[in-house]
Order: sequence, then C-alpha cells, then structure tokens
Amino acid sequence: MSTSISQDPIEDNQSRLSINGERLWQSLMLMAKIGATDKGGCNRQALTELDKQGRELFITWCEQAGCETRYDEMGNLFVRRPGRENTLPPVLTGSHLDTQPTGGKFDGVYGVLAGLEVIRTLNDLNIETLHPLEVVAWTNEEGARFSPAMIGSGVWSGEFTLDYGWSRTDKQGISIKDELVNHNMLGAAKCQAFAVKAAFELHIEQGPILENEALQIGIVQGVQGMRWYDLTITGKPVHAGPTPMEQRQDPFMGLADISKRLYQLAEQYAPWSRVTFGDIKALPGSRNTVPEQLVLAVDLRHPEQAVLEQMDLQFRQIVAEVCEQYQLIGEIRDEWNSPAVSFDKACVNAVTNAVAQLGYSAKTMFSGAGHDSVYVSRVAPTSMIFIPCEGGISHNEAENATPQDITAGANVLLAAMVEMAEI
Amino acid sequence: MSTSISQDPIEDNQSRLSINGERLWQSLMLMAKIGATDKGGCNRQALTELDKQGRELFITWCEQAGCETRYDEMGNLFVRRPGRENTLPPVLTGSHLDTQPTGGKFDGVYGVLAGLEVIRTLNDLNIETLHPLEVVAWTNEEGARFSPAMIGSGVWSGEFTLDYGWSRTDKQGISIKDELVNHNMLGAAKCQAFAVKAAFELHIEQGPILENEALQIGIVQGVQGMRWYDLTITGKPVHAGPTPMEQRQDPFMGLADISKRLYQLAEQYAPWSRVTFGDIKALPGSRNTVPEQLVLAVDLRHPEQAVLEQMDLQFRQIVAEVCEQYQLIGEIRDEWNSPAVSFDKACVNAVTNAVAQLGYSAKTMFSGAGHDSVYVSRVAPTSMIFIPCEGGISHNEAENATPQDITAGANVLLAAMVEMAEI
Repeated sequence: MSTSISQDPIEDNQSRLSINGERLWQSLMLMAKIGATDKGGCNRQALTELDKQGRELFITWCEQAGCETRYDEMGNLFVRRPGRENTLPPVLTGSHLDTQPTGGKFDGVYGVLAGLEVIRTLNDLNIETLHPLEVVAWTNEEGARFSPAMIGSGVWSGEFTLDYGWSRTDKQGISIKDELVNHNMLGAAKCQAFAVKAAFELHIEQGPILENEALQIGIVQGVQGMRWYDLTITGKPVHAGPTPMEQRQDPFMGLADISKRLYQLAEQYAPWSRVTFGDIKALPGSRNTVPEQLVLAVDLRHPEQAVLEQMDLQFRQIVAEVCEQYQLIGEIRDEWNSPAVSFDKACVNAVTNAVAQLGYSAKTMFSGAGHDSVYVSRVAPTSMIFIPCEGGISHNEAENATPQDITAGANVLLAAMVEMAEI
Repeated sequence: MSTSISQDPIEDNQSRLSINGERLWQSLMLMAKIGATDKGGCNRQALTELDKQGRELFITWCEQAGCETRYDEMGNLFVRRPGRENTLPPVLTGSHLDTQPTGGKFDGVYGVLAGLEVIRTLNDLNIETLHPLEVVAWTNEEGARFSPAMIGSGVWSGEFTLDYGWSRTDKQGISIKDELVNHNMLGAAKCQAFAVKAAFELHIEQGPILENEALQIGIVQGVQGMRWYDLTITGKPVHAGPTPMEQRQDPFMGLADISKRLYQLAEQYAPWSRVTFGDIKALPGSRNTVPEQLVLAVDLRHPEQAVLEQMDLQFRQIVAEVCEQYQLIGEIRDEWNSPAVSFDKACVNAVTNAVAQLGYSAKTMFSGAGHDSVYVSRVAPTSMIFIPCEGGISHNEAENATPQDITAGANVLLAAMVEMAEI
C-alpha cells in the first residue's frame, strides 16, 4: 500500500472489534428484494413507493438496534446511537438507499447498511463510544428521478436552498416536496448541517482500479473535480449526395478532431484525468443529410483543481480552433461544475490506521464519481472508503462485490469510526 | 461547358419553341399553396389529403390542356398528349408531387409541372409530335411518409413487387394500399413498365455545384451509386469518473478514428466521392457513462460502381482495424444498396443538343441524390436535367430557384423531348 503507518498502539477493546459479515450481507440481500429487477439489480428510485418501503425496512432494523430515527425537511433519514457524551458532535456515516432505474444492490445501500452494522456490532460487544454515532440515508443521491443528483446532502450542506430542493420535479412534474408529503417523509428536523466530529462514507469503487490491482481497500483522499458541458457543433445541413466534400460544413468532421484532441488532453494529464462523451444527438438526424448540429455531453475530470481548470481552458481552445478550421460554430454550455475535493486529513488518517490495524491491502486513491461526501465535506471533516466491485461495473444491474470485500470495508469503517468517536 | 456539339441543323419549327416561364412559375406557386408551411415551404407528404388535393389540381390543369390522365395500381399518375403516331412509344417526363415534411416548392414538383408546361407550349404552337408525350407524377418519391423512397417508380420498373409496394405502412400503420383506396387513387392501369421512347426528368440540383460555378444547366450523365449502412460500435459502459482512460472500451475513441479515416477515403476518391454520417445515437446515452454503443447512419456514394465497391471494402477494413485497436466490436449492417447508374447516351445527347441550341451555360455532372429516374432508367432510355437551386439547399423549406433558371430548365426539357419525339 502507498501510505505508511507509524502511530497508535491499538487498544485492546478495538482489537476485538469485528463486524458480522454474514449479517451485513443478509441485510444487503433483503434490501435488494425491494425493487428487485429480473436481471438481479434494483430499481428503487428516490421517493417512490419502493424507496419508501426500503427506508421503512431500514428504520425497523435501526429500531431493533435500539436507535432513534428522524427525517429532516428533505427526507434525509438520520439514525442515532447515543455516546457517553451526548453533547459532543456525532461521528457520522452513511450514503443513500435510492438506486438508478437499472441499478445494483450495492451502490449507496452498502454505505448505509454498513453504518447500521457498525452499530449492531458495538451493541453486540456492549461498547459505548465517547461521541454519539449517526447513520444517514441521504435523499435522491442518484439524480435518476430528480435532477440534480445528491440533492439531499446538497441542501443539508447549504449548496442548495430548501426551496430549490423541494421544487425539483421528476419527468411527470411531481416535485420532491409532493413526494415527501405523499410518503410521510417530510420530517420536522431542519435540513441544515449540524456539528459533526467526523464523517465517513463507505462505497463500492465504481471503477476497476482496486480489482485490477487486487487490493481490498481504497483510502480515498478526495474526489475528482468534474465539469459537465453541453457542446454544440453547428454546421450546415446539406444533402448527402450532391454536396461536394470540400464544400461541406459537417459537424462530424469537427467532432472527429475535437474528440481526438480531447483524448490527447486526457493523456497529457494522465493517470487521473478523465474525458467522457456520454451522449450525442444529431439534428435533424436524417440518414441522407449532413447534420446541421451535433449536441454532445462532455465530462472532464481531474482530482487537482488547477489541472482541471487547465483542461477546461484547453477544451475551449480546441473547440474554437477546430470549429474555425471546418467553418463550424462551436458552443460550450456549462452544465455543472463540481470542484475537486480534498478530504479531511484526520479522517483519511483514521481510515489509513484502520487498514493497517486490520492488515488489508490498500492504496490511496481519488473518487472519480460524485458522492454525498462531496457536499458533506464542505461542512464537516469527511473521507471515504472504497472496496472493489466486479469488473468496475456500477449503475448497472450486474453490479457486484464479494462478501469478503463487503466485510473488509465495513471493518475499516467500524475501526475508523471508533477511533474518531473516542477522541 | 464541357461537352461539344457537332450535329443537327435545328428545324425551323423547333427554333420558335420556347416555354412560357411566367405561366410555369405561376403553376409552381399555386401548387405550393397546397400544404404551404409558415416558413415558405411545403408539407405535402405522399398519399395524404394534401397530396390528393395537389394531384387533383394537376389533373384539372392537364384536362384543361386537353390531356387524358390515368392512375395505375400504385397511384402513379400518367398524363398523355397524343402524337401523330399513337402506336409509337411515348416520350416520358415527370417526377413527383409529394414533399418532405419540411420540404420546398421545387423538389419534384418542378419536374412534373414543367412536363405540363411542355404540353401547354406545344398546344400554343399547334405542334403535334410524332411520338405521343406523357407526363408522370410518381407516388411516394420522398420516402418521408412511407419507406422506401421512390416506391411508385420502383414498382413500375419491377424493382419491387406490387404487393410489397401496397404493404408499406407509415408510422401510424396505414398502408399505401389503404390510402390509395381512401383517396380514390388506386387506378385500373397495371403498374408495370411500358415501352418508352425516351424519359427525361427535370429537377433542381439539390447541391451547390451549378450555383457555385454560375452555370444554368446540369447535363446529368448518371446517378451516384449509394450504399447505406448502420454502423454499430459496441464497447463497455463504465462510469465516467472512476474508470482510467487506458482501461476503457469507448466507442467514441473508435468513432474518432473511423470518421477521420472515412473522410480520408473520400479524399482519395475525390471529387465525386461522398461520405456522410447522417445520424448517431448513443446507448445508454447517460452524461456520466461511457456509452456501451454508438449506432451511426453511414452513407457512401460514388458515380463509378467499381470505385464504390472499393470504398465499401475499405470502409469494412477501417472499421475492423479501428475496432480491434480499441477492443470494440464493430458491426456493419447493409441498409440499402443503390448501384451507380449511367444514363442513356441518346437521351444525354438530346439534352446536350438542347443546351447548345438554346445557348445556356452548362456542365456534365452526376446526380448525388436518388431520383425516380434511377428506377426508370432500368427499363427505359433515360436522363436528367438539373438547374441550380439557391445555396444548394433542398429538403428544406428554404429551397429556392430563380424564375430564369426555372424557365431555362423547362426550355431544355421541351427541346430534348421534341427531339426525341420526332425520331
């Protein structure tokens, strides 16, 4: 692993700490039945009846574990296990229970149920922590039903106003507030950040790095900055036959060069840079007409903010140069801008210590995906823990992780939370 | 002009021949009112109520010109002006009256109404030709409502069976036969080729060549061969953030190289080669997911069949090589294959003679678009005449042509038809 451990004699108490991997796995599989799809995935989109059922099952388990639960105004669901000093800020963990329409069993759910498993384990061992512990299931992380993604943690952290969060609508025009009321999830608790000692989010990697390097744990130091753009390349719609090639203003000629040069840009800032064209549309989209317009979704990422900004500049320059060359009009609309995040050093250290103490193979890394922790980290000391997922696949019904890795990740979470809850 | 004229003392009779450009223009503008769009174009799709209205207006004019009209089994509408010897095969001209959904006033319509104007002119001058003359309005040339395009001339020439033609349905599931019955256009005449002395189709160029070279007439020697493909590039859908660039199987990486190399292929076979990507779709088309699949409409054209076949081979090789390089799966599905057409030498000569006789500037060229004449040429001596259109634009409400060019083209048609009708 790429971090070195130098401190901390492990307390006796902590050395006995080990979660019940079988029980956690069973919880995951039970939760996965709610919204189960034919292909073995889950469709439990935010604030649907199925999401409600999933949250109620989770609440039942939390109450069985002796915890109190509360909804806030955005439907974020908090679970509290008291500590020895309940005026101290809690150590928080959690993620989300909603899924993509063709989502998997682990994305988000794992982080929530592992938080519950930490509480169950401490209950089993009769361990009371100094700080209270809290587990949270954030509302609408996926952004699949309501845009933008991570709206629950976004409002909580002050990124969005409550009114903005409430007013987001799905494709049928139903708003988040409507559904919170419909499903009795509109809580009395204010949706705003409270003092948190430390926050951890345990998640599947959603990428292939850990699996490819046969490592068990990713010690996540930050989240890649992301910039989302709509790139529109406008040319001239002409008949595919009669118009000589050299007289065309063909957006595809521009796209060939733009995409090629953007992939070169990714190479220039390797290995953590990412360039993705996720979607494309041709207008008018007629087989025998040169398109008047191509509209592309472009996604640029880098974990260093300065590099991301450099990539942004070069992207604009490339589009301008190529469009001039082919007599096209290139327009870049900024869709979303999520600056790079550096996680809290103390939280990262707690994870590093936990990994060392448990003897897992690990590497420090960045998250390439957005997570609730991006927003949480703006108002609380935060870090994340990754485990491998099969083939790096997520947002997919085939999403999978091994019971061994599921257990290992939860053990790291347990140890890191206990470390932070005792200081 | 690029052809040389060597023969034929012009007959006295013919030297007085000149169409009434104003009357033709007026007919075009009257016809354009049926299905007129706000933007000055036409939406008169095949076998709709508006198409019926357009055909009825045309029939009225033809009857006023003393002609008999008949529908065949595919709704192809024939207009006959007797000759001195009515057992001789007719000289045929015509095109189509249907338009694209956002079509113009000239594409197709010009060729039909110019045919009528030829008859009106001969009536005015009391000229009776040796061969009878016929004008035809083919059914569903555009292919906008019913696929494939040029179905009326296709059945007539034997390219498609009558049952195939009748069974084509629009997006609502209404068949061509249904609409022929609904609109009383199902004629008693067999839809099959009859003996034709010569066939001419007068059309706007639908490309920019004549306008750019400031020429009045295109002497069309043939039609580009066309091959339509669906190209599917399949990779692996992975999350835009976590997946390192070098581990991706990204269809867009393949597309950049494939499109670049296909444009180079077009250069290799310039100036008559055409490479067009008319449409593209990304699956799943999610902003932050590398697409699993891109599906592209690819259109390759060349007027020499051997070159087109070479382009086809090289296209397949490029796709195979690029997909291997990026670990993608490339699949090419043949959508349509229209071999290159060489028009009849005698017909082309008649047009060449007419141009010389009338003193118009002209060049020999190929049609890059498909036309009814492609099918007609398989069973009858055929050629086409082009006039410039503004900006080379067609299939567009902005489609335009000057009254001067409209008149010039019809004069060429008149002279060429009379030449062929007298021998």
